[in-house]
Amino acid sequence: MIKILLDCFGGDHCPEAPVEAAMNALAKNPDLYLILTGDEKVLRKQLEGRSYPQDRLEIVHAPEVIGCDEKPTDVVRLKRNSSMMKAIILLRDRDDIAGMVSTGSTGALVTGALVRLGRIPGVIRPAFCPILPTMDGGLVGICDSGANMTVTPAHLRQFAIMASLYMANVYGIKRPRTALLNVGKEAEKGDEIRQEAYKLLKETPSVNFVGNMESRDFLSGNYDVVVAEGFSGNVLVKTTEGTALELLKKIKKDIYSRTLYKLGALLMKRMFAQEKEFMNYQNYGGSVLLGTSKVVVKGHGSSKAVSVEKCIEQAYRMETSGLAAQIEKEIVIYDHYEE
Amino acid sequence: MIKILLDCFGGDHCPEAPVEAAMNALAKNPDLYLILTGDEKVLRKQLEGRSYPQDRLEIVHAPEVIGCDEKPTDVVRLKRNSSMMKAIILLRDRDDIAGMVSTGSTGALVTGALVRLGRIPGVIRPAFCPILPTMDGGLVGICDSGANMTVTPAHLRQFAIMASLYMANVYGIKRPRTALLNVGKEAEKGDEIRQEAYKLLKETPSVNFVGNMESRDFLSGNYDVVVAEGFSGNVLVKTTEGTALELLKKIKKDIYSRTLYKLGALLMKRMFAQEKEFMNYQNYGGSVLLGTSKVVVKGHGSSKAVSVEKCIEQAYRMETSGLAAQIEKEIVIYDHYEE
Repeated sequence: MIKILLDCFGGDHCPEAPVEAAMNALAKNPDLYLILTGDEKVLRKQLEGRSYPQDRLEIVHAPEVIGCDEKPTDVVRLKRNSSMMKAIILLRDRDDIAGMVSTGSTGALVTGALVRLGRIPGVIRPAFCPILPTMDGGLVGICDSGANMTVTPAHLRQFAIMASLYMANVYGIKRPRTALLNVGKEAEKGDEIRQEAYKLLKETPSVNFVGNMESRDFLSGNYDVVVAEGFSGNVLVKTTEGTALELLKKIKKDIYSRTLYKLGALLMKRMFAQEKEFMNYQNYGGSVLLGTSKVVVKGHGSSKAVSVEKCIEQAYRMETSGLAAQIEKEIVIYDHYEE
Repeated sequence: MIKILLDCFGGDHCPEAPVEAAMNALAKNPDLYLILTGDEKVLRKQLEGRSYPQDRLEIVHAPEVIGCDEKPTDVVRLKRNSSMMKAIILLRDRDDIAGMVSTGSTGALVTGALVRLGRIPGVIRPAFCPILPTMDGGLVGICDSGANMTVTPAHLRQFAIMASLYMANVYGIKRPRTALLNVGKEAEKGDEIRQEAYKLLKETPSVNFVGNMESRDFLSGNYDVVVAEGFSGNVLVKTTEGTALELLKKIKKDIYSRTLYKLGALLMKRMFAQEKEFMNYQNYGGSVLLGTSKVVVKGHGSSKAVSVEKCIEQAYRMETSGLAAQIEKEIVIYDHYEE
């Protein structure tokens, strides 16, 4: 039985979306066991009248609510009975639980996970890895996307190893083509950290290192994993999302400027809906935290049921594929680089 | 008379595009004087049969060619008779020349300008500032976009001062809304450099600092200047370009998948052409180097005549507005922060 915690509060569509997702995930995976955290009364009410395997669903009461403006460190320290912190503490304390999924505050989740959960032996710094769709229908993982503002070359190598194994295990990509985010293709580009990381990555057999990537080529489909420190990784992901959304918004606005365009757009209605869905990152699941001893998946705050279900699926596959053990095996080789 | 050097070789459409641009710029600006650098024979041939004010156009022979793979430092040291290096040396040596425009190698231009030209008194590090179109029809400048891989908070403040004055003087934006690129809006986000820069910017009266900007909002039209170190600034600009181009390419491909879409696209042909033009950064001119003692404008390598002409116009306005003197005045106040 694979036991996964599901934080049922904190997202925009909570608790409806997580509860709906739980029902679907339980129906599809006969060895999945879910532990829902949150206000028990509210959750029981959501479950009323639904048919689900009662022996594979548990509720843990956690009535405290995390405010929008609360500092992550305060949440971790003071809100132990919130649905998110309760899940993190259970994950730490119960050996039978494999991982957790949350659509709550990213800052609180990362801080809580880093403070409360241990790391995989050898991992210096856990890192965030979201996935985005590429223009040829594939996926690309970016690690780190915001957990570490400053890094060393050794950190970047670890991010590459972890994200490569993640893309291979969870998405079935063989020898993921892994690139270092940089300002140019040549080995000597970027700062000293990037130049040194380039050398380290070239001599890491477990990483299929294909060189530096310019951010212009991010969606080209030529890369499966992009490695960066959390600051520019965050810029890469959010600029991609922002540009795509703004451009589609502009096209929509321009369509309404002329009757002729409106007519044309009518014929292309389905296509435009598809483009929008294509760029909707919800459809690809959540960001995973790589390097913590237990699995942590962060769904978008705006996640609907289908997206939360994808997050549960990600957590499930991370656990069943034995990702943590593989990360440990590949990373301990280099632990002499540890600071 | 405003004298500007025009490097006529190095870009994809050279020397046709710069020569054509020179003709147009000279016709429009009666006090503009252009000095073309490059192979004199080739340039004379280009000018044959054209009518232009011969007393406002000069040719300086510079026959050496810069190869694609040459290292910037080698170019600066060894290719003194190339059209670019000749222009930089003339700019340094002749007091009557105000600035230069080039569509050649960015690396060679930046290295050459930093090594050969002096800085505006008080400026610690010159920085690159391209401009991009925002979705509401405005423009946003991003400084630095690649000249400085690592920075201090004092550098970031100088970038903000220089880029604000640039957007005000060249594009007529009053009190440009200036933001710091960061991973979140709150003052405590990002690394220590960002946190300290936030404080410095808040207490700089010559900068209309509006706080941190998340890269998702880059094209929103809410900002006139975005300040960053060169690495993430480069990621911001290139990701925006790349995402827009890839998305338009995908839409084009999808249109061809169904007859109905092809029909719709036919009605919207003009709109799609406009969107493409809108996202074509050539239409907005080049990137300027801010902080060097003389004006340096870098056009895209793929610049056609209209884009080179915009670059000449930028250089002209930077000089006639007295930008350098204003930068000096606002920056010397803070020179106790110099390293």
